[in-house]
Amino acid sequence: MDLRTRALNLHRESKGKIELVSKVPMESMSDLSLAYSPGVAEPCIEIKNNPSTIYDYTSKGNLVGVVTDGTAVLGLGDIGPEAALPVMEGKAILLKRFANVDAFPICLDTKNVDEIVQIVKALSPTFGAINLEDISAPRCFEIEDRLRQELEIPVFHDDQHGTAIVVGAGLQNAVKLVKKEIPLLKVVINGAGAAGMAILRILQQLGYQQIIMCDSTGIIYEGREEGMNPIKESIASTTNPLGLKGALKDAMEGADIFIGVSVANLLTKEMIDLMNDEPIVFALANPTPEISYNLAKEWGVRVIATGRSDNPNQVNNVLAFPGIFRGALDIRATDINEEMKLAAVQAIASLIDERDIRDDYIIPDAFDERVVDAVAQAVSDAAIESGVSNLFQPAIK
Amino acid sequence: MDLRTRALNLHRESKGKIELVSKVPMESMSDLSLAYSPGVAEPCIEIKNNPSTIYDYTSKGNLVGVVTDGTAVLGLGDIGPEAALPVMEGKAILLKRFANVDAFPICLDTKNVDEIVQIVKALSPTFGAINLEDISAPRCFEIEDRLRQELEIPVFHDDQHGTAIVVGAGLQNAVKLVKKEIPLLKVVINGAGAAGMAILRILQQLGYQQIIMCDSTGIIYEGREEGMNPIKESIASTTNPLGLKGALKDAMEGADIFIGVSVANLLTKEMIDLMNDEPIVFALANPTPEISYNLAKEWGVRVIATGRSDNPNQVNNVLAFPGIFRGALDIRATDINEEMKLAAVQAIASLIDERDIRDDYIIPDAFDERVVDAVAQAVSDAAIESGVSNLFQPAIK
Repeated sequence: MDLRTRALNLHRESKGKIELVSKVPMESMSDLSLAYSPGVAEPCIEIKNNPSTIYDYTSKGNLVGVVTDGTAVLGLGDIGPEAALPVMEGKAILLKRFANVDAFPICLDTKNVDEIVQIVKALSPTFGAINLEDISAPRCFEIEDRLRQELEIPVFHDDQHGTAIVVGAGLQNAVKLVKKEIPLLKVVINGAGAAGMAILRILQQLGYQQIIMCDSTGIIYEGREEGMNPIKESIASTTNPLGLKGALKDAMEGADIFIGVSVANLLTKEMIDLMNDEPIVFALANPTPEISYNLAKEWGVRVIATGRSDNPNQVNNVLAFPGIFRGALDIRATDINEEMKLAAVQAIASLIDERDIRDDYIIPDAFDERVVDAVAQAVSDAAIESGVSNLFQPAIK
Repeated sequence: MDLRTRALNLHRESKGKIELVSKVPMESMSDLSLAYSPGVAEPCIEIKNNPSTIYDYTSKGNLVGVVTDGTAVLGLGDIGPEAALPVMEGKAILLKRFANVDAFPICLDTKNVDEIVQIVKALSPTFGAINLEDISAPRCFEIEDRLRQELEIPVFHDDQHGTAIVVGAGLQNAVKLVKKEIPLLKVVINGAGAAGMAILRILQQLGYQQIIMCDSTGIIYEGREEGMNPIKESIASTTNPLGLKGALKDAMEGADIFIGVSVANLLTKEMIDLMNDEPIVFALANPTPEISYNLAKEWGVRVIATGRSDNPNQVNNVLAFPGIFRGALDIRATDINEEMKLAAVQAIASLIDERDIRDDYIIPDAFDERVVDAVAQAVSDAAIESGVSNLFQPAIK
């Protein structure tokens, strides 16, 4: 049976993928009188009198709302909130499987930014954290920024930061392999959507100083007139220090690293040949990458990573988001900040001992059982140190 | 240990009562490729192309959103959405335990009627039905009416209709016991909030013609000036055919049935003495009824029902709402209409054979395993017959 048939059968036979079960017994009138009326009034009164006890007496502290408007689902685009539900259910069971986090899909029948912000704020009493998912750029940036500012619980947009964290981790190891110095490396990022923007920000924090960003119009530079918007103006002013202009091909000349979050089969042999020695390529278009794993190797790419599970070096968000939410919830973080994201990058990269890094092993396997604990611990520590934990204070130095 | 300590311990030890689990395996890269990327794209595409398949490929068809704004929680009043969460989690696990319905708490940080309606509409892609819970009157009436009109999925306010359905069922059996004729009976309902209004409507449909409704001001009658609002004007015009005026005590003279959804210890011996022969009393104030079970028996009440699990004849909503949602979801109802509510009344009442009805057995036990199936079947049948099933058409007659 092909993948399509098997996937449809799986979903139809189980009628979806999530189920809500009780953590307490409910077999007698006595059980009922504790978990429901009249006993349930007691935790209600406690929470009313001391609001932080909601974390003691309810499931809030382990509950993540997976919020979408269905505008940028997988590679399928704006398919709407109903058609997005299978992805959100999938995200929920990944959080449970990998990090024992309970998560629930919230598929919103509105694309209005103000309304989405207002609704998520109104929903926040139930949740310990919010994961934004599959919301199109540039709306996703404003929604995330405003919710991070206005909510006391952490808000994370996995399509941006999850991808960026795993790319950052993979690059850390790839760069060790080729023994190059980060600040000197020329990096081309092709694609200025949600993931591209977050990758840019992570790489800037990791010390990369010569980043060229391209979109479908070509290189983004200060003074460009075609296809600009406020986000791209900010890209232009913080990247491309030499003011390069032209097409993607022009950017590729002398590049050490190419990161594609764009479209299938876009890289030509000519472009690869233009790159510096020992080129590193992250070809992340899904399901078909900007260049196939085998062709990249054939054309002399030293390290190639893709989003595919049937190639080595899979950039899979599941390496990042379960541990990030686990770590944030464990110490009641009020935010998922840059320090926590960078801690996750280093935790994932460090799982591969420097002596074990190989061309085809720069990123741990998605089912490597060490990942979630390492990421959660690093994220918890970074949250406490950066002062965004509601349970612990930074150590006095 | 007292109830308070045991209830707090239960909630603290389990950190809340609900958990989200996967219905599909997630142990290998192959599992992941079916339940998540890339396989999950297939049900997404199916739903996009044929929206009703969301019921085949997702959990929507078995998911109920339990929605509150925390304004009328148990007898505690307006304690807010955070403090309401233990009750909503309790409702969710009752739905799972009694009817295998998956339910999720939605505690909204807004009391604005327009906003609540707008938010629930925006959330509706995820859910197969909505249960409104612990929203104060009269706002709950408008919210329910508007959502029923504007949503394609059923909306049910349990505090109104759940209580009313069980009261209706209990009364059917109590009246058989005293061998009186429904149209001739004088009924006093004390309390014109959410439950009182719904009880009124059910009793009118069951054929009761002489109903007097009282609030804290006294008897509601046409032309009364104190404490009126549009809801109470409508009560005045459809009840109290003889135009009685005065206090509750005045209403009680010659009453056959008293139904209290009001406050503790309100009924005096004088009031009971004013009632007709073989009085029937439903004293539903929680946790302390309008008159205690024992005092009622001592003062000559023939049939007394309360909300308490430690007395016979408990009016417990759990007899109604699990089967109602089960029945509505099973046939993809678009509404929970009056026909379905009346079907639930008769189904619950009929579970006690006429020969088995006794003064202390007019309502089935909450853990009577026959209840949910009987209610679900009756509700499904009534939905199909009244033309609100999206799966089945009414039989041709």
